[in-house]
Amino acid sequence: MNLVRTFADARAGYEGIVALVPTMGFFHEGHLALMTAAEHSADTVVVSHFVNPLQFDSPADLERYPKDLERDMAIATEAKVDILFTPTSAEMIPQPLLTTVTVDGLTDSMEGLMRPGHFSGVATIVAKLFAGLQPHLAFFGRKDAQQLALIRRLAVDLSFPVRVIAHPTVRESDGVALSSRNTLLTTDERHAARELSSGLFAAAAAAEVGERNGRQLEKIVSSALQLSRPDYVELASQDRVERLDELDRPAFLAVAARVGKVRLIDNVAFDLVAGEVVADRGIRLEHPSLLYR
Amino acid sequence: MNLVRTFADARAGYEGIVALVPTMGFFHEGHLALMTAAEHSADTVVVSHFVNPLQFDSPADLERYPKDLERDMAIATEAKVDILFTPTSAEMIPQPLLTTVTVDGLTDSMEGLMRPGHFSGVATIVAKLFAGLQPHLAFFGRKDAQQLALIRRLAVDLSFPVRVIAHPTVRESDGVALSSRNTLLTTDERHAARELSSGLFAAAAAAEVGERNGRQLEKIVSSALQLSRPDYVELASQDRVERLDELDRPAFLAVAARVGKVRLIDNVAFDLVAGEVVADRGIRLEHPSLLYR
Repeated sequence: MNLVRTFADARAGYEGIVALVPTMGFFHEGHLALMTAAEHSADTVVVSHFVNPLQFDSPADLERYPKDLERDMAIATEAKVDILFTPTSAEMIPQPLLTTVTVDGLTDSMEGLMRPGHFSGVATIVAKLFAGLQPHLAFFGRKDAQQLALIRRLAVDLSFPVRVIAHPTVRESDGVALSSRNTLLTTDERHAARELSSGLFAAAAAAEVGERNGRQLEKIVSSALQLSRPDYVELASQDRVERLDELDRPAFLAVAARVGKVRLIDNVAFDLVAGEVVADRGIRLEHPSLLYR
Repeated sequence: MNLVRTFADARAGYEGIVALVPTMGFFHEGHLALMTAAEHSADTVVVSHFVNPLQFDSPADLERYPKDLERDMAIATEAKVDILFTPTSAEMIPQPLLTTVTVDGLTDSMEGLMRPGHFSGVATIVAKLFAGLQPHLAFFGRKDAQQLALIRRLAVDLSFPVRVIAHPTVRESDGVALSSRNTLLTTDERHAARELSSGLFAAAAAAEVGERNGRQLEKIVSSALQLSRPDYVELASQDRVERLDELDRPAFLAVAARVGKVRLIDNVAFDLVAGEVVADRGIRLEHPSLLYR
């Protein structure tokens, strides 16, 4: 594995089809799944590793975000990543960025509403990664469903010649979506965190047997949240992130909730296959996550 | 010359170093100078030819903007352009762009103040051209000095691996800067248009013999404007586009004025060479411009 710190050094290591996996580090099996999918599709896999300060709406949240580059390097090496791009702040943000990329419409609700500035921070840095790394493919997890919609739109709107590929959410064995934030939970909080996924799975089961009403599906999730404090529960279209009254197109049912001081998000995606609703509940690990290794 | 309508077709024709000359068509010697400079530096010269609706603040101005693709194709062929990229609106803007690129700070004054939305329209489409065409070099005229500052900052901020190269303004034999808008002037208005460049040249001469006061330099230009109606006259720094009290760094002295219904802009750039101020007055044609051919 080649550890590089500049865009130019990353590009100098390219051969053939290049796949990018953008990350903020502290790798878990969700990242590994993206790396593996990238390896199957590309000759060169670049993993970017940068905790983007622009997308944190609170300095405390940025400070709390877990970091361990040595651990991440070992995992990336094991995962046969070709290039680990760990830019310094000086390479990524050498001077205050005057340039901002915004994606309207998709970002007004849910995470965009709860975290002002978050999505322009994401869009600006992802545009910078696409511009500077020029990948042919880019892999993103479905856990960040609104972010995925934003990135797909950004790539098309700005004509980046990159194919954005979505990967199912990877979950711990009890259903909780993998997130580096899970390591910040106490034992009790970790138990309470199960409410998000169990509520989503209950709604997914209802949808698969015919429930199409957006408010009903949201209600199934909300009623599962007893110990956590929900920010929102919302059924929205996958492409435009518009709240849906009826589950009549590709959609996702998303939840954000606070468990103790930790804010968690999760969702199930609903795809339409031959007119039938098929829920993408993600992939469940059978072993303890390397998050806790 | 290869005429292409899509980003993918443009990229398919690349060999070696690629230089982009972004244009809105209706070519004149200013464009030709950029094409020639591009040919000297690159293996493949791509000229984009797209009247960007996003950068017009008034539909009437967009409607008036002169267009003649056949003429432009003949000129580009003669100029040995490799690829003329003439995207349809459907390729450039297949759906309303939700994504916007803005560059703060540099765009608050002058053209940014007079033409709300103009520079985000420029930044968004130039980012799209950089993203979709992936040039190694990009050539821009110094006539649009504030635009040049914006594009330089955008390229650095978003890490596009492109070198932005500035080319001196090309002028008609009487000093008037070439612009496709010149063709919209009546004979009387064309005569009045000389006030902009003659005022700038007078200020340049004063600066070269020691005048450093920003307001004095601006006053020399303003006092030359008798028949045209100025929007602004301003001395600003080249990099940050901040109004300067003293000409003590690389700067440009810019003017915008209305002559009849036509709005013209012009500037002289001041570079510092070994501590001395050197004015870049541009290049003067000795023959009538092909604008009028």
